[in-house]
Amino acid sequence: MTDTTDIGEASDFALPQLYKHHVFSCYTQRPPGHPRGSCGASGAQPLWDRLGKAIETQGLAEIGFTASGCLGFCKAGPLMVVYPEGVWYRPTTPEDIDEIVESHFKQGKRVDRLVMVLTRR
Amino acid sequence: MTDTTDIGEASDFALPQLYKHHVFSCYTQRPPGHPRGSCGASGAQPLWDRLGKAIETQGLAEIGFTASGCLGFCKAGPLMVVYPEGVWYRPTTPEDIDEIVESHFKQGKRVDRLVMVLTRR
Repeated sequence: MTDTTDIGEASDFALPQLYKHHVFSCYTQRPPGHPRGSCGASGAQPLWDRLGKAIETQGLAEIGFTASGCLGFCKAGPLMVVYPEGVWYRPTTPEDIDEIVESHFKQGKRVDRLVMVLTRR
Repeated sequence: MTDTTDIGEASDFALPQLYKHHVFSCYTQRPPGHPRGSCGASGAQPLWDRLGKAIETQGLAEIGFTASGCLGFCKAGPLMVVYPEGVWYRPTTPEDIDEIVESHFKQGKRVDRLVMVLTRR
């Protein structure tokens, strides 16, 4: 016996998942004109507030919502990432948020027009 | 044609993954004696700083590391979660951090003794 388990190995040790989808939304705010930019400077906060409120008021208990620090890719913001599927979104309007909630979180259908495909530097 | 894709459906639209593992570590700090407690009050910050530094100095480019706000379950902290596998850890010592880096991130073996299995309220 060891105290480690191969990740992803089918076994009795598979862990239950806390959330069906877990969203992380970047709340980083840099000052206007900062060379790196930031999700906050790109108007993120009211979008994330709308997202968090929609999850709460619609009783979507299987969706986790967590504020995050910088996710990198600052000029691509506002950025959020949804796990376990690893989908990165760049919503810019309240309607975009509502569509992610309705399509991705409630119907299980990714919203391709809002997806960002990012590459590590 | 629609602009949505079934999540997880095998298709040409499967997205590349940015990270092999993406870690979110809770940096929430509430004052000493606060009734909810917090990861910060449980000594999280030096652990996460060690984790971030290990990922950087060991050149683990496939590991994403992001500071997060409150992950819930405040009394269970210090808490971190690793996606896409959805493993929640509660490390309390520098040695715990080193073991997670070596075992989970470098060898792909979950460290069962540090896993927290959480249930939604």
